[in-house]
Amino acid sequence: MVVLKCKKCNNKGVITIRHRNITLCKEHFLKYYLKTVESTIKKYRMFTKRDKVLVAVSGGKDSMSLLDALKKLDYNISALYINLGIKDYSDQCKKIVEKYCNENNINLIISDIKENYGKYLEEFKKLRRNLCSVCGIIKRYEMNRIAYEKGFNAIATGHNLDDEVSFILWNLMNGNFQYIKQKPVLEKIHEKTVKKVKPLIFLTEKENLLYSLLNNIYSIHLRIDCPYSTNAPTNILKEMLNKLEERIQGIKMRFYKNFLNKSSQFLPKIDHEIKSCKICGYITSSNVCSFCRLFRRG
Amino acid sequence: MVVLKCKKCNNKGVITIRHRNITLCKEHFLKYYLKTVESTIKKYRMFTKRDKVLVAVSGGKDSMSLLDALKKLDYNISALYINLGIKDYSDQCKKIVEKYCNENNINLIISDIKENYGKYLEEFKKLRRNLCSVCGIIKRYEMNRIAYEKGFNAIATGHNLDDEVSFILWNLMNGNFQYIKQKPVLEKIHEKTVKKVKPLIFLTEKENLLYSLLNNIYSIHLRIDCPYSTNAPTNILKEMLNKLEERIQGIKMRFYKNFLNKSSQFLPKIDHEIKSCKICGYITSSNVCSFCRLFRRG
Repeated sequence: MVVLKCKKCNNKGVITIRHRNITLCKEHFLKYYLKTVESTIKKYRMFTKRDKVLVAVSGGKDSMSLLDALKKLDYNISALYINLGIKDYSDQCKKIVEKYCNENNINLIISDIKENYGKYLEEFKKLRRNLCSVCGIIKRYEMNRIAYEKGFNAIATGHNLDDEVSFILWNLMNGNFQYIKQKPVLEKIHEKTVKKVKPLIFLTEKENLLYSLLNNIYSIHLRIDCPYSTNAPTNILKEMLNKLEERIQGIKMRFYKNFLNKSSQFLPKIDHEIKSCKICGYITSSNVCSFCRLFRRG
Repeated sequence: MVVLKCKKCNNKGVITIRHRNITLCKEHFLKYYLKTVESTIKKYRMFTKRDKVLVAVSGGKDSMSLLDALKKLDYNISALYINLGIKDYSDQCKKIVEKYCNENNINLIISDIKENYGKYLEEFKKLRRNLCSVCGIIKRYEMNRIAYEKGFNAIATGHNLDDEVSFILWNLMNGNFQYIKQKPVLEKIHEKTVKKVKPLIFLTEKENLLYSLLNNIYSIHLRIDCPYSTNAPTNILKEMLNKLEERIQGIKMRFYKNFLNKSSQFLPKIDHEIKSCKICGYITSSNVCSFCRLFRRG
């Protein structure tokens, strides 16, 4: 096996950044990672050092790496962990997040869904609801509510290149153009929404994993995955896209950048009406928001 | 191994039509194949029994199956073979086509590129041209010219579902929206163009191969592939899409149908100017058509 050498210093390479076709050693990869996070934040004007940023963390490699990078880059961050009560999973995730925030002196906000709203995620199984979609509704609602109530300027999530590309592709294949909003920034569009940003969109899953390993950041991915995610079609697409990437170097990044540059040309303009939920006052396109309908509030 | 039985007659199944989730025996598959070809022709008003149809054949499984199906369905067809002179390949293809047309009493037109224009495909290698793109220019020009000059009402090609889906995906990923014209019918848009139709778009590569095998139609695919096609990115995508199909049944057809139904929503309207080539009079978007430029005519 040929050991590739770091392009910067000739030391032993630990990873090849495929879309740039460069191999880097541990030291230069960690620099590259932080530089990429920072340049993404600046390029898309996500937030500045003066902003209060809420980092949504799940305990997985992506969000833990994001938290660590933003801390090292000296942004003004707090972490948010939303406990959905998934058996044999959520408790372990929570412990990982608590331990990291404790050791790194990061303010951690924990939202417990059962405490706040009376029910954990898995109780929606009885109602024959798709748990992944319920999980999405709850997390989007709760991270926005907390950020708004506590006066944060932005919510940062750990979405990576693979997440974005697989989601775009899945929705293109299924003709769900209205769901494709894979922009680096979702601006504030309602009095009670907070801007959402994705600083890791130009980093892959593999790069996030390596960053967390090289920094000894413990993440739940090292032990288990969310029991509900395994057969998600976007996960199947991720595998396929990685196999495609092995054969056509840089295709994932090319696809995403083409999408960013040209999607306004090819996505239909769908104007959802922006209203305020009659029950909770947060954003909705109908009279009652999907979260209030889910929990039968009001 | 479980042997699946034909849904129609309980005999031994030979194939599962994935997007319909039905298994069929030899007899019912052959009926299904012809019915699909005929219903596609009718649905998109490709041609009728009164039309003169020119079938573009390469000697491969798709175009040979198309030729056979149109013959069995009693359409008024002639075949066109374009000899591009690819070494160790074109001659074998030509023999296959000649033999089939001879045995089945089909009028065969052969266009020899060197005889007509002084050069075979591989001579463009020296000019550092991408041969696959040169091949496309030549074949599109020549099939249209012959169909026009000989008074055909339509040109039928053997493009199958896998061709269409991989081509759409490749161009979506690369942001080449202007190239995506994967419609079942390309209407006549210029005095000297002939309508082009694709009767096999709802059949997969695998279904075409099986049809040709069960009918003892000899095709070049049984021996060799075009030496230039192996590493074409659309071929890599086809492999990936077939692996995806194994995990998500019917995804290829769903993707294609969504594209057909919704592409007008999401593709940019690009209006190429339609002009006549100053040299040959056939369609072009500039002053001289790409074919005349390729052969430095005029």
